[in-house]
Amino acid sequence: MLPGPYLLFLGDTVEPGFAKTAFGLRDWAPDRCVGELTLPGAKVSTGLPELTLGEAYAQGARALLLGVASPGGLIPSHWRPTLIAALEAGLDIVAGLHAKLNADPELRTLAEAKGRRLVDVRTPPEGIPVATGQPRTGRRLLTVGTDCALGKKYTALAIARGLAARGLDATFRATGQTGIMIAGSGMPIDAVVADFVAGAAELLSPAADPAHIDVIEGQGSLFHPAYAAVSLGLLHGSQPDLFVVCHQPGRQAILGLPGFGIPTIEAVILQTEALGRLTNPAIRCAGISLNTAGMTAAEAAAEITAIAQQTGLPAADPMRGGAEFERLLDACAG
Amino acid sequence: MLPGPYLLFLGDTVEPGFAKTAFGLRDWAPDRCVGELTLPGAKVSTGLPELTLGEAYAQGARALLLGVASPGGLIPSHWRPTLIAALEAGLDIVAGLHAKLNADPELRTLAEAKGRRLVDVRTPPEGIPVATGQPRTGRRLLTVGTDCALGKKYTALAIARGLAARGLDATFRATGQTGIMIAGSGMPIDAVVADFVAGAAELLSPAADPAHIDVIEGQGSLFHPAYAAVSLGLLHGSQPDLFVVCHQPGRQAILGLPGFGIPTIEAVILQTEALGRLTNPAIRCAGISLNTAGMTAAEAAAEITAIAQQTGLPAADPMRGGAEFERLLDACAG
Repeated sequence: MLPGPYLLFLGDTVEPGFAKTAFGLRDWAPDRCVGELTLPGAKVSTGLPELTLGEAYAQGARALLLGVASPGGLIPSHWRPTLIAALEAGLDIVAGLHAKLNADPELRTLAEAKGRRLVDVRTPPEGIPVATGQPRTGRRLLTVGTDCALGKKYTALAIARGLAARGLDATFRATGQTGIMIAGSGMPIDAVVADFVAGAAELLSPAADPAHIDVIEGQGSLFHPAYAAVSLGLLHGSQPDLFVVCHQPGRQAILGLPGFGIPTIEAVILQTEALGRLTNPAIRCAGISLNTAGMTAAEAAAEITAIAQQTGLPAADPMRGGAEFERLLDACAG
Repeated sequence: MLPGPYLLFLGDTVEPGFAKTAFGLRDWAPDRCVGELTLPGAKVSTGLPELTLGEAYAQGARALLLGVASPGGLIPSHWRPTLIAALEAGLDIVAGLHAKLNADPELRTLAEAKGRRLVDVRTPPEGIPVATGQPRTGRRLLTVGTDCALGKKYTALAIARGLAARGLDATFRATGQTGIMIAGSGMPIDAVVADFVAGAAELLSPAADPAHIDVIEGQGSLFHPAYAAVSLGLLHGSQPDLFVVCHQPGRQAILGLPGFGIPTIEAVILQTEALGRLTNPAIRCAGISLNTAGMTAAEAAAEITAIAQQTGLPAADPMRGGAEFERLLDACAG
């Protein structure tokens, strides 16, 4: 379990796209966020109150969370005084950078001296077992995608929250760094050594009460030439009873790989069922989650209706909610 | 490139099954093996001459290779004097144990002082890139399996050797520890972090002359509930034009997982084609490699004929050779 609540650190970021982690935390874990801290020159804000380290601690913060991407994933030297001051102010530090906090001798020595934790959320735990493939109790739902970065995390969060709002016993299970920060725990599945990916997914969603539902954040895509291995290991280890296909209408090619087209939703359903059956013969698609962020309300409604008719399955944009999303939740609950 | 030639270290092993690595080296890389070294009590031998460290060095050996499995994958304390003496005798050490030579302070300090290398073949190189999925020149063949541990390495070695014997420009590409020791280089694919598995496979079989054939050692199985992710990443990154399905007639269940049946050869062909098409639309099955080690010659011949008829593809046991294997090589060369 990660330390918290968080003070969100935004550095001197001027580009909102670099602060997705901070925005995700504000949107999905407001109860874990006390405020934000920026450096001079910052042009991005989460809208949370700007606090000093001391103010944040006094208001209950127990960790400084690095909520922005840094150039090359390194720890910029002009962030360092703030990180040191945070440890001295009694805060732990939580980060998902490529460069590990724990690999930094200065920070590590100071943290040890002060009894503080440096948490690198992209570092998997030790001792992950090889998957057994054995069925376990409890129900599981996995979000899968026609590509990366189109809403698998937000869909899983919205479904878990929607099911919980109906009084069901549902838990969001995080597999990426922002999801782990939101949930306060999870498994950085794409940082796990390949032999143990399915085992890591088994560990993430353990045996549970038969009525319990784990809603598992998907990663990558079975049709992604670099990341399909991650997606398959996560599928096999999660043993989902249900999956929801996440899609962004209008996206033509795999992100960053123009030579690779986006698969059809139907192809993703067939492939996920065919491969998922290995560890859960009853796997089936609950519905479709559409990322219509770039559309007008009318365009989105038309697209949602069209996809529902085309697939014969519930379709919705969880961020827009409405009756369509309630129908998708019906299918996820059933 | 690994240091060599090798002196094969067998410890005090009494069980031939623990010495598979040493036997593989004797069988497939005799030109890299100067002799063997055993400890008192050993009941296993490769048949190579027993040499002292000094004799081995004088005969050209440049590395002591740990050719046996150890309990728990650790470095047994009674092996330690031999390892230290090897470094002092001018030999590097090559190992594929779970415990890393380089994590042993005593061995590391001595190796540094003596200018010797400690090579852990299960440690992937630094800086493996994310896969691009872009086509590259040269031809590639991948061995795939209906399960683990049934002949994918030996099949790839036999095909590479068979093609080379025909004058073709073929290279065996190793993906597991024994294969890497045999080839002298390679990529420990199952030890790579999941996000980079396909990228590691791209690195292993780089762009080459259009007539060149890389014969790539497969890992795991697309139908293995723990290791399918490794197999898929290797398939996508290898972009094979051809694949050979390896199968052991009579095996009923996935090794160590009695609840999981062995897929049919046809199912493996269809699944490999369906998934492999993502990065090589022209992928096709060249034939079937059967591990008939437990059969009489007559039983093996009948099984080979039956599988060839059943699939309509060349089938052979590369270890038995014969006209059937020549036909399989025809298909691999074509």
